[in-house]
Amino acid sequence: MDKVVKTLREAIQLSGLKDGGRISFHHHLRNGDYVLNMVMEELASMGFKNLSVNASSLFDCHLPLIDHIKNGVVTEIITDYVSGGFGAALSEGVLEKPVQFYTHGGRPAAIINGSTPIDVAFIGAPTADTMGNMTGKIGKSACGSMGYAYADAMYAEKVIAITDNLVPYPLPMPSIDETYVDYVVSVDEIGNPAGIVSGTTKITRDPVGLVMAETAAKAIKASGLLKDGFSFQTGAGGATLAAAQFVKDIMIKENIKGSFGCGGVTGYMVDMLNAGCFESLVDVQCFDLKAVESIRTNPKHVEVSAMRYASPFAKSAAVDSLDVVLLGATEVDVDFNVNVHTDSNGRMMGGSGGHSDTAAGAKMAMIIAPLSRARLPIVTERVFCKSTPGNTVDVLVTQKGVAVNPARPELAAALKDGGIKVVDIQELKKAAEQLCGSPKPLVRGDRVLADIIYRDGTLLDRIYNVK
Amino acid sequence: MDKVVKTLREAIQLSGLKDGGRISFHHHLRNGDYVLNMVMEELASMGFKNLSVNASSLFDCHLPLIDHIKNGVVTEIITDYVSGGFGAALSEGVLEKPVQFYTHGGRPAAIINGSTPIDVAFIGAPTADTMGNMTGKIGKSACGSMGYAYADAMYAEKVIAITDNLVPYPLPMPSIDETYVDYVVSVDEIGNPAGIVSGTTKITRDPVGLVMAETAAKAIKASGLLKDGFSFQTGAGGATLAAAQFVKDIMIKENIKGSFGCGGVTGYMVDMLNAGCFESLVDVQCFDLKAVESIRTNPKHVEVSAMRYASPFAKSAAVDSLDVVLLGATEVDVDFNVNVHTDSNGRMMGGSGGHSDTAAGAKMAMIIAPLSRARLPIVTERVFCKSTPGNTVDVLVTQKGVAVNPARPELAAALKDGGIKVVDIQELKKAAEQLCGSPKPLVRGDRVLADIIYRDGTLLDRIYNVK
Repeated sequence: MDKVVKTLREAIQLSGLKDGGRISFHHHLRNGDYVLNMVMEELASMGFKNLSVNASSLFDCHLPLIDHIKNGVVTEIITDYVSGGFGAALSEGVLEKPVQFYTHGGRPAAIINGSTPIDVAFIGAPTADTMGNMTGKIGKSACGSMGYAYADAMYAEKVIAITDNLVPYPLPMPSIDETYVDYVVSVDEIGNPAGIVSGTTKITRDPVGLVMAETAAKAIKASGLLKDGFSFQTGAGGATLAAAQFVKDIMIKENIKGSFGCGGVTGYMVDMLNAGCFESLVDVQCFDLKAVESIRTNPKHVEVSAMRYASPFAKSAAVDSLDVVLLGATEVDVDFNVNVHTDSNGRMMGGSGGHSDTAAGAKMAMIIAPLSRARLPIVTERVFCKSTPGNTVDVLVTQKGVAVNPARPELAAALKDGGIKVVDIQELKKAAEQLCGSPKPLVRGDRVLADIIYRDGTLLDRIYNVK
Repeated sequence: MDKVVKTLREAIQLSGLKDGGRISFHHHLRNGDYVLNMVMEELASMGFKNLSVNASSLFDCHLPLIDHIKNGVVTEIITDYVSGGFGAALSEGVLEKPVQFYTHGGRPAAIINGSTPIDVAFIGAPTADTMGNMTGKIGKSACGSMGYAYADAMYAEKVIAITDNLVPYPLPMPSIDETYVDYVVSVDEIGNPAGIVSGTTKITRDPVGLVMAETAAKAIKASGLLKDGFSFQTGAGGATLAAAQFVKDIMIKENIKGSFGCGGVTGYMVDMLNAGCFESLVDVQCFDLKAVESIRTNPKHVEVSAMRYASPFAKSAAVDSLDVVLLGATEVDVDFNVNVHTDSNGRMMGGSGGHSDTAAGAKMAMIIAPLSRARLPIVTERVFCKSTPGNTVDVLVTQKGVAVNPARPELAAALKDGGIKVVDIQELKKAAEQLCGSPKPLVRGDRVLADIIYRDGTLLDRIYNVK
């Protein structure tokens, strides 16, 4: 009468998954996730081959997946983001087929329109009832929002919920409801809550970072967008978080009542909500446990699907109403194209996530990046990989000045009026080269390691091996 | 930048609706709804013809629609329920094509699987923001749950939200979100909240009704289902509500902790929630303002889509987990088939609503009906219209005894053990005839007035004209 099956193996058998099948995972448990490895190990031991893995992001905790690639269990990876360790392993070329990089908004769009269909979605659920109603807000492995799992649940042929907190039917207020779920499996642990907080989710203390952050906040003020009704997203990098802090200070000082904060949400955004800077938070993913606590307890902190966050094919998404987004970069070129996929050696160590989605949607997309990192210039002639097209990027903030996209002369004028040092991006490139010299450019090999699929489904760029 | 258009006419023009198009409405404002008439008047004045109207239910307030049928603006009606006045008008035969009666669970299933596609959904929204996020929980015309509008919003080609409470973006906690909405129209009033409460939503004071209600509660107790974890739905009829009250008394007295109450929800179910009889309410539709207040304020009172309530094609729905449902009938025949579509004159005055969905899902589907009404027998040889198939009905409770479906001998035995007077349904038929005599049976004409589409999409019965 209910959907609980005794073992993961039984659920897989019941799902009808076959060799060559397409399976999916969400990444809300981030570097604390146990579900992907657990499932892949079971699939490998059952003898599956040629599987396509569509995971909304992949972290170092998922390195065992590399062995499954080597063994032929997995022959395709579709993802929005890979962590440094995982990306480095992929960059060795273990996968014959190029990695398919989507964006956080493009991924659900592609699932929904059939470009990347899913046979079986494996959904780690911090709490689930016996009929498959699930939430990420409660349970020992609570991750908060489950926004990236909605499309998988709604459009996969079969859906298996994997939980370490099975509760009686009906779970009130599910994020994903029983109408989409086929089987429920109860396991000891779906993840390590400590690992949910991963990556750079602390404000920078680096003086260069703080200079950029303060400049960014002043530029936002000068843009004219920082007024009542202001909406805002910031990534989880140290300098962007510091900039958010400066923005918060201005909002409080000037009594500016914003409308919403958006995105992957950190405790810093929760602080802004609680300080009255926003009417609500629109949360597709919690980056830390303070955000998890907030989404559980504060009705103004609202879980949204990845479609509502950023899908380009939804009738609208939150990013379409965004005023300002603050983003990072591993490289920016003189046409404002941004690379967030590869490091300075051309190795994969990131991905678009919501980068290009928010840049496309926001009235002002602002990149914060130092001129150089580890004696390598960040502002370059041509990015090694185009993650976010320059025509969607408005402003680049560095420690030596702010460049405004020439397509936005009115914005450049406003920033100058606001006392911001606006410079040509070519000057920033020169300054970067003066700091670091002109490094020998990476030489592309012939092998395609990854396709960068833009949010609308078109091929934006490719990542090649480096000679 | 937002989706607000100045007038309904402009929204209709933008929607691309054409003659012969298929439009839809929800009925959460019940007999207080202004939206359907407002839209139809506009469409008529714009010269539209041959429209198909898919309305989850139709009330007497919608009688102007009859004129639009007569004028050829509307040539098809798809609905789950018609009120007495509206049904009587339809029974005059104004519509050439038979009315297509669906069920509350079958309707979204048919929309989703493409049997009844929708070109433009007109969704009355008690509150909406400028991008189309909507809720029924707040606003001067609050109706509570908007469960029946989900499928329309998710699957219609174009969606027009019509609201009398337009709020800034983003509305926190929307029921239906912006990803589905094309246009937003602000109007003075979408309905009369007083009209939301309509039909029989008060406990009966009729002695016969009270006898049946008490018997029903005793039978539920005797069935063995009334224990911790009990789940329960009751219609909004006077006798079924009285039975719910008796069930509540038993639960409180015996300290039974149920799991969930379900359905169209009345204040009586809210009382049961608040008294600790249930862990939560699963609410597809609020029948009164006490339910509206509760769903707004109590997180245990949960809005669900019609799919999650009752869709037969969802991977599961709440009705599949239901222990007991109490239902009414205008006729029950000796094979336990139930008519809730026509009155004793064969005129349309109802519809399945969730009747056949819950009967199919519940472990025990119990009909409460007196032997006779207005000197006409209710228990008959053959129902004039089969709304709910007898093989999904378990028990018939009358004032002269309880009949159990012969397919459930173990249930009959349990009821007898519990002191219930269990009789053969033929005896109830005889008793009804003794009370009323054998009325001349209605003679069917040749004209099909309505098709009764069962929840799985098959044709269950037809309503013919009466000679």
